[in-house]
Amino acid sequence: MKTYFYPNIEERKQLLLRPAFDTSLLQEKVKTVLNEVKLNGDTAVKKFTQEFDGVSLNDFSVSEKEIREAAALLSNELKQAIQQAEKNITTFHKQQISNVEVIETMPGVKCWRKSIGIEKVGLYIPGGTAPLFSTILMLGIPAQIAGCKEIILCTPPDKNGKLHPAILFAAQLVGITKVFKIGGVQAIAAMAFGTATVPKVYKIFGPGNQYVTCAKQLIQQDGIAIDMPAGPSEVCVLADDSAVAGFIAADLLSQAEHGVDSQVLLVTCSETLVKSVEGELKKQLESLPRKNIAQKALENSKSIVVKNIDEAIELVNEYAAEHLIISCKDDEAIAEKIVNAGSIFLGNYSPESVGDYASGTNHTLPTNGFAKAYSGVSVDSFVKKITYQKLTQQGLQNISKTVELMAEAEGLDAHKNAVSIRIKNL
Amino acid sequence: MKTYFYPNIEERKQLLLRPAFDTSLLQEKVKTVLNEVKLNGDTAVKKFTQEFDGVSLNDFSVSEKEIREAAALLSNELKQAIQQAEKNITTFHKQQISNVEVIETMPGVKCWRKSIGIEKVGLYIPGGTAPLFSTILMLGIPAQIAGCKEIILCTPPDKNGKLHPAILFAAQLVGITKVFKIGGVQAIAAMAFGTATVPKVYKIFGPGNQYVTCAKQLIQQDGIAIDMPAGPSEVCVLADDSAVAGFIAADLLSQAEHGVDSQVLLVTCSETLVKSVEGELKKQLESLPRKNIAQKALENSKSIVVKNIDEAIELVNEYAAEHLIISCKDDEAIAEKIVNAGSIFLGNYSPESVGDYASGTNHTLPTNGFAKAYSGVSVDSFVKKITYQKLTQQGLQNISKTVELMAEAEGLDAHKNAVSIRIKNL
Repeated sequence: MKTYFYPNIEERKQLLLRPAFDTSLLQEKVKTVLNEVKLNGDTAVKKFTQEFDGVSLNDFSVSEKEIREAAALLSNELKQAIQQAEKNITTFHKQQISNVEVIETMPGVKCWRKSIGIEKVGLYIPGGTAPLFSTILMLGIPAQIAGCKEIILCTPPDKNGKLHPAILFAAQLVGITKVFKIGGVQAIAAMAFGTATVPKVYKIFGPGNQYVTCAKQLIQQDGIAIDMPAGPSEVCVLADDSAVAGFIAADLLSQAEHGVDSQVLLVTCSETLVKSVEGELKKQLESLPRKNIAQKALENSKSIVVKNIDEAIELVNEYAAEHLIISCKDDEAIAEKIVNAGSIFLGNYSPESVGDYASGTNHTLPTNGFAKAYSGVSVDSFVKKITYQKLTQQGLQNISKTVELMAEAEGLDAHKNAVSIRIKNL
Repeated sequence: MKTYFYPNIEERKQLLLRPAFDTSLLQEKVKTVLNEVKLNGDTAVKKFTQEFDGVSLNDFSVSEKEIREAAALLSNELKQAIQQAEKNITTFHKQQISNVEVIETMPGVKCWRKSIGIEKVGLYIPGGTAPLFSTILMLGIPAQIAGCKEIILCTPPDKNGKLHPAILFAAQLVGITKVFKIGGVQAIAAMAFGTATVPKVYKIFGPGNQYVTCAKQLIQQDGIAIDMPAGPSEVCVLADDSAVAGFIAADLLSQAEHGVDSQVLLVTCSETLVKSVEGELKKQLESLPRKNIAQKALENSKSIVVKNIDEAIELVNEYAAEHLIISCKDDEAIAEKIVNAGSIFLGNYSPESVGDYASGTNHTLPTNGFAKAYSGVSVDSFVKKITYQKLTQQGLQNISKTVELMAEAEGLDAHKNAVSIRIKNL
């Protein structure tokens, strides 16, 4: 990690800049795949699966038998862990259901709002080195709670055309019944446009590489909603001398091991802490299986030493981290002053990894500074909120003058008439 | 309106298709304006204001004096109407604030979620034939309730470089202090990138023509959030013989007068009703100032007669209208079966125009079938929901095994370590 001491405002701005990824170069490639799947459906999906995943599949669907058998392939310990995580995530997300409350804004004018699950949603889970079954919990559980009727999952097959049993176990646990062995842009395209095998959905969720991210951006223009824009994963640790250097180093490394483009930031007023963390990083790094990835990510990472806690808070708010760990004596008071972050971890015993897996909060969070305007995934992400109104004759009478005057002033006489014709008829 | 009797499934699908707008043709033009404003700031804004709005402005800012003076230019009646609407909209939207509730998902594992207003938001109000001050209420009020700190407004100047006083009156009423006389793509660009005059915002709201819509789509790729994708305004009326033909005709016309591309749909099982509505439409159309617009919109509009109410509900759900009026005897029971709509109006005395202006619900709603996945604007649209967690030592102990096992199974050892190192230290 590089350390920056007491940067001024202009320097701080520079330090907080994320690396810019120009997706315009990918766009043409991604568009080609999207269009081909749109036109040729399963045939195109098959072709791209062969091309990109190196496996030829005649059927992308995972059978119910395969799903059932998955459970037998996992240790009981792991199954119990997944079930415990499922329980906690469910407990936390269930509280996000909103109740209908009828509000009489004027006598006889009743308005209310109701959340209804998006009928058809698609979840995408990337392949790669690790089977990200935890993300299935994070997306599938709120989808279930929201009442989505069709929840489908696409994830790339391995070279043998198989999926990891933990993926299938998590999928059945959260009630996903349709699982497809499709990855990358072709998976996003299949869910966005529908094929003979894959149903078309209304909203697509889940992480992915630059190609998948670009595909999700593009299909928005076809009216398909997505969870949020995405960038590399990030952690920012705000710490004072009450922090334990070894814990902080472990947290920074848990972010750094995600990928070489992971963003890791330490903000503190304590020069001593920075030094101790550096030492701990070196020590802990040695024993990590993903040492090479973590080391590369750390090379682009920053420790910033600032003058006082107010400056630190300002900096942290400007950065708008996906994950913010506050390891400070006054953690709760400081948290009150944070306005931009995806998820906040307080104190010495709340490492990011508990939120990544099992504490109950969602781990699908806004990266890349998007936390300034976006929230992480929640039950809200899987519902639409429809508003309703019902007026009595008296209610319409009470509000009629207001509506007529405003419609007239906007030059919309037919809007006015829709009220006047009813009033005349009373 | 064209009437279609008892279409089969395939025909129904065809009937419900929205006209496709290909924005790819606009994109190059829009990109040019976006890029020029990004590079040259106010100079570019000035140039495009001259070019597109035909007026040369040295200062885009509206002075506080101009805002104060606006009130004097409006009738007391209209001011009271706007104030009444403001009161109702505030009453309805205030209920959308969510309270913080701390949930202990496991002993010692506390998680919660807090809504925080997006710090900087930009509202866009189009110009054109009518001053759409009602939209300022619909966007400004939830922004205020959400606690957004900077709420700016852009709207195009008239040929004399002025804004309509009702725009300014509504803006000051809802606490917008920075108003800029900028329209079109240059307004979206100024708010997305910031200029010397216009502050950069994190999320942009508001309606607009195809160019504005395209600009909003494009700036999403720069990480600026937008309220929702947009298309022409729509109403669908679902009616039975308990409906009053004159009321329905008035509702259809109030949608048709918006623009020649407005979408108007009547769904019913009653052939008699369709005939009566046709007659009423002809009669009422005659006296409308915006007759030509409404007539053109009606030419592309459809009455669909179906066999029974279940078919009608299926059709209405498939269409996913921005506004759905249910003028049926069993309105509330039918509403329970609707899953896709922006806002629903129940019974004979709830015309769409009461919701457009003053009943309290929001009128910024998903068009073009987007109601399948998107909600209308609400306080939710102006906040981010941040999650928090704080574990006690015992809490971490309780959850440690679960997290360690899952992290290990995902091949993320540093994630596991972040827990293990703390446990060893207890």
